[in-house]
Amino acid sequence: MDKIHSLTGMLDHYDDGDIENISVKIFETEKRIKKVFTNYKYSEIRTPALEDTNLFVRSAGDASDIVNKEIYSFNDRNEKNIALRPEGTASAIRAIIEKKLDQTNHKLWYLGPMWRYERPQKGRYRQFYQAGVEILGYEEGAPEYEIISMVCSIIEEFKLKNCSIKINHLGDKESKKLFCDALIEYLEPFKDNLDEKDLTRLSKNPLRVLDSKNKETQSILENAPSIRDFIKPSALSLLENIQNEYKDICNVEIDFTLVRGLDYYSGFVFEAISSELGAQDSFLGGGRYDHLSAKLGGKSLPSIGMAIGVERFASLVKDITTSNKVVSFLTLTSNLESKPYKIAHQLRSMNSNIILDLQLSDGSLKSKLRKANKNNSEYAIIIGEEELRDGTAVIKFLNDELKDQETVSIKELFSFYTSL
Amino acid sequence: MDKIHSLTGMLDHYDDGDIENISVKIFETEKRIKKVFTNYKYSEIRTPALEDTNLFVRSAGDASDIVNKEIYSFNDRNEKNIALRPEGTASAIRAIIEKKLDQTNHKLWYLGPMWRYERPQKGRYRQFYQAGVEILGYEEGAPEYEIISMVCSIIEEFKLKNCSIKINHLGDKESKKLFCDALIEYLEPFKDNLDEKDLTRLSKNPLRVLDSKNKETQSILENAPSIRDFIKPSALSLLENIQNEYKDICNVEIDFTLVRGLDYYSGFVFEAISSELGAQDSFLGGGRYDHLSAKLGGKSLPSIGMAIGVERFASLVKDITTSNKVVSFLTLTSNLESKPYKIAHQLRSMNSNIILDLQLSDGSLKSKLRKANKNNSEYAIIIGEEELRDGTAVIKFLNDELKDQETVSIKELFSFYTSL
Repeated sequence: MDKIHSLTGMLDHYDDGDIENISVKIFETEKRIKKVFTNYKYSEIRTPALEDTNLFVRSAGDASDIVNKEIYSFNDRNEKNIALRPEGTASAIRAIIEKKLDQTNHKLWYLGPMWRYERPQKGRYRQFYQAGVEILGYEEGAPEYEIISMVCSIIEEFKLKNCSIKINHLGDKESKKLFCDALIEYLEPFKDNLDEKDLTRLSKNPLRVLDSKNKETQSILENAPSIRDFIKPSALSLLENIQNEYKDICNVEIDFTLVRGLDYYSGFVFEAISSELGAQDSFLGGGRYDHLSAKLGGKSLPSIGMAIGVERFASLVKDITTSNKVVSFLTLTSNLESKPYKIAHQLRSMNSNIILDLQLSDGSLKSKLRKANKNNSEYAIIIGEEELRDGTAVIKFLNDELKDQETVSIKELFSFYTSL
Repeated sequence: MDKIHSLTGMLDHYDDGDIENISVKIFETEKRIKKVFTNYKYSEIRTPALEDTNLFVRSAGDASDIVNKEIYSFNDRNEKNIALRPEGTASAIRAIIEKKLDQTNHKLWYLGPMWRYERPQKGRYRQFYQAGVEILGYEEGAPEYEIISMVCSIIEEFKLKNCSIKINHLGDKESKKLFCDALIEYLEPFKDNLDEKDLTRLSKNPLRVLDSKNKETQSILENAPSIRDFIKPSALSLLENIQNEYKDICNVEIDFTLVRGLDYYSGFVFEAISSELGAQDSFLGGGRYDHLSAKLGGKSLPSIGMAIGVERFASLVKDITTSNKVVSFLTLTSNLESKPYKIAHQLRSMNSNIILDLQLSDGSLKSKLRKANKNNSEYAIIIGEEELRDGTAVIKFLNDELKDQETVSIKELFSFYTSL
């Protein structure tokens, strides 16, 4: 029979126990990021994978790469245009509006797969994972401080080295408009030197020209007006306060050229980058998006959020260790004998802090003990025909230099296991 | 601006802290099921949401409801027929074959969204969640005992009442064939009384006629041959052993009419049902599927697995309590003041066992304390302008009858928080 293959750009992740495996790092990254979210008392929101394509067209903006070339969309059986979500924010806000919760405060987190339809390349997949938070209902100030605190906690949790947090302020509507006008005026004489992409950005969302990867554009921008001269003093204080409070934890840089890829950002924006990542050095980013809720048909709802690229983040993670105690359970009885499995079941009910690895194969004791050692088991519980007949079990002490093994009654085994 | 709505049959799940909310139950269910999987030393496998549609046609069988009417499929931009996975087993086996791991043993678990395209009805959604395990590479015996042990552990973990485990054995290829022939022969005179659906089943996979919901078919089947008379003595012992070992934990019933909805099952099959669920009473099911790997182009790989319908399972869950300690952090300073956030950050770094709820709003102390009590906070840490100036903080004891509050230095606050 011929094989059926996975689709282009879609990976399988399997925890094979090898801490160098990127899948193992992804699982561990997710677990610990969730722990940080939970410790900050954020609540999970989980939206469906599929949405009306219009949601993303309206939220991300029609100048964004997400909508222009990357969106994974199709027509369903009723000829409705459906998209697999490319990011998490638009869906979260759509859900909050639909639940009529757009007039109250929320601290949300999400984690899950996202999709884009593009030619797969190193480190970019058609199905990928993002974790993120959204803080809804709070004006500028407190949520900015808390979200950068959370970024620092995540960096501390994983003991990441060589990373910085870049912060900027895109101004309120008024100062953003003045800055855009100044930028357009400045770029006017250079129009013939801009490529098509940057010209489109200039007409649709001029700020995003600052994001250009084109070398010539970058050199033209060297003398462009800076947003520093357009934002309010309170915006500047916000940036300075953040830098001062968190600089002892992570290198916090004010970067007045930082803009974000989605049109909906305004006010405070930020990115975390790592010098270990190469050209695409950002692994986390976010900002304020006060106008998105109204744009999606909800009430005006001041909002700030961030998203973490899980794969890229996981690639930075080193030194994963799991702290759970493992015990191996080895049977040497015939394959149809059911008693040892009941004993294992009882052990598991007694102490759920222990990972009990019951080896199901009918291999030799030697090969089973080898596997128990490989699993970092501290003890092996062995039951063969003889023990089964006598109502006993053997406990083998795998990490003990002085003690080899001991035969105990099942009752003694239970108290031993409970005390672990 | 008009609102954009979620798609038909696709729910948002939001943890609003209300333990009666089904979303909260779903999150808690998933967390605890994962803990059981992990304690049994199973490894996570995570496959993409999308697959070549042929994978499911070939695995589920062309007589299955999944393929006939429910599959959520579409043509992508390259006119390739793609399906959103309707279940987890086929993808897991496809992944193991593709990684060339189909000659070794595995104990896998997965948890994630699945999709089907059907008219939504009560309790059935177009996006839903399944958790499951697959035990690969082991012949009949040990894995059967372990998987029922795990079902019992899950039932015990959630203290579910009013449920039973039904078990059956569909025989090996040979006895299954003999039984099918007997069944076809028995049903031959009743052909005119069968509806179209049962006639299709009879021709494509006769065993599935036993699954018929048609009352007339059911009464015809009352005198049909029983698989009990076709399976081997060892198969019968297996069923009896399982019943004997686990009957003190859960009501285990041998049911010789139990067949499963997917064509690929053979040998041992089982289902867990609850009388609290009404007509569709099964919340968990599985069985042996030794021939699936070869059918998908892999090596012959003895396999057994089960899947849990998360929504249905969650609806049975009662008495959710979370054990984590919550402390509230209340600031009464101006919105641009950043120092309290840094103090909160330091507290979080010092003790990650505590959930610290920093209230970001500039509400009154009274309303903030009300929220702290609602959150079941044991303590409130309060920092206002005065405390900020003096380098102090107020600790309010919310659960203490005798002690109201205490003003401490930041250093004392740190040692207090570390000791919690």
